[in-house]
Amino acid sequence: MISINQVKFIQSLKQKKFREIHDQFIAEGSRLVLDLISSRFVVKEVFAEQQWISLNRAILGANNISFTLVSESEMSRISALSSPSPVLSIVTIPEAAELPSSFQDEIILMLDDIKDPGNLGTIVRIADWFGIGTIICSENMVDLYNPKVVQATMGSIARVKAIYANLGDFLQQIKGSTEVFGTFMSGENIYSCNLPSSGIIVIGNESNGISKEVSEYVNTRLQIPSFANNNAPSAPESLNAAVATAIVCAEFRRQGIQ
Amino acid sequence: MISINQVKFIQSLKQKKFREIHDQFIAEGSRLVLDLISSRFVVKEVFAEQQWISLNRAILGANNISFTLVSESEMSRISALSSPSPVLSIVTIPEAAELPSSFQDEIILMLDDIKDPGNLGTIVRIADWFGIGTIICSENMVDLYNPKVVQATMGSIARVKAIYANLGDFLQQIKGSTEVFGTFMSGENIYSCNLPSSGIIVIGNESNGISKEVSEYVNTRLQIPSFANNNAPSAPESLNAAVATAIVCAEFRRQGIQ
Repeated sequence: MISINQVKFIQSLKQKKFREIHDQFIAEGSRLVLDLISSRFVVKEVFAEQQWISLNRAILGANNISFTLVSESEMSRISALSSPSPVLSIVTIPEAAELPSSFQDEIILMLDDIKDPGNLGTIVRIADWFGIGTIICSENMVDLYNPKVVQATMGSIARVKAIYANLGDFLQQIKGSTEVFGTFMSGENIYSCNLPSSGIIVIGNESNGISKEVSEYVNTRLQIPSFANNNAPSAPESLNAAVATAIVCAEFRRQGIQ
Repeated sequence: MISINQVKFIQSLKQKKFREIHDQFIAEGSRLVLDLISSRFVVKEVFAEQQWISLNRAILGANNISFTLVSESEMSRISALSSPSPVLSIVTIPEAAELPSSFQDEIILMLDDIKDPGNLGTIVRIADWFGIGTIICSENMVDLYNPKVVQATMGSIARVKAIYANLGDFLQQIKGSTEVFGTFMSGENIYSCNLPSSGIIVIGNESNGISKEVSEYVNTRLQIPSFANNNAPSAPESLNAAVATAIVCAEFRRQGIQ
């Protein structure tokens, strides 16, 4: 049984303002909650249906996580999902990780003003798949702890660190210590470019691409070639930001294993 | 000025049932509407704000498209978008294209039960970018003319043909005439596989992958290798369906130009 105050509190965490006040966010779905419990995140509390509790009581006990039993209709009141899952957790937002200062053998993603929650979540999932542990995000882009972002990561939020920073300041500070790549509508064909096993890959905003300030620090402009029919009356303008991220990360890793 | 009946009619087209009754769908946004006007699609009618009409009156005239001037508040009543654009069009659903019967030098995408509108729209956009003109969709998956799908294609719906069919029947019929590839959680590493310049690439459902019936027709099972840390307490299970599509299409095209 869940109290009105608990319902109100959980609903408030759908807004960034209240996530910042309480330093907490919500994460739903069995896979995601279990991934978070086994990660560096601290799961504070779990709201779950009877069957989920029965199955996972030992894990909750071993990790000292308190739980509240809820009915299906209570779950639909607190869930941010259109099809609620049997478990919702409240998780502490960890202290911001430190920005990286050495870049040996590490690929880092940098996101310049990604606005769409689904794109950020999908990019975190892509980073996880390609063994990229750190994402540096521009200060005013979409919040990592937005429930739609958390959901779209499909558990990868538990394994990939995202750090918000002023990108220009950071790039100025580390200038010369690693190569900075950016994806643009025109640049070197990514397939004819020799890609190293370390560096920063910058992905730009969905509509405007990489900002002028950040592009000044880009050493190599990469382009994903289009194979569209040039004789058609119209042509595709671009790829979705998460899709471009995937193709670039895949090509860096492919070259690394050849 | 728009009538109540027009508002009701446009709103009804957000539902598949009414799109099928009227053989019409809605498409919004200047880029998308202009791409559709210059394509094989027939744009029946346009609802737009004054400025858009002034800019595009010649194009509307040349294509015999009737238009209705609407205010911003009228637009927000008919639009399916959270941030309405200055133009909404009503477009005739074209007759279903014929299924391909020869496969020389052509890559065809086949979607086995994609459910998410954003994924289908993004896949159409990816196909367009990589010069793939035909997508074969399973009968009960998400509808191409769903407003969220149309939007996510970013205009690519004007250039890529999607044909709904019974996949098993089609694959049985064309058996032996082209190679059928599918993406699976285990299979040949896509980077060590020699990919041809023609064939069918099957992409499976977001949760369940490729169905048993369809996988029986797959000649080559492809796998996108993960580079995640194997020593971590948990690991990513999969990539988003549209992201996997992008990586596979990019690799087919990359090998084609080498």
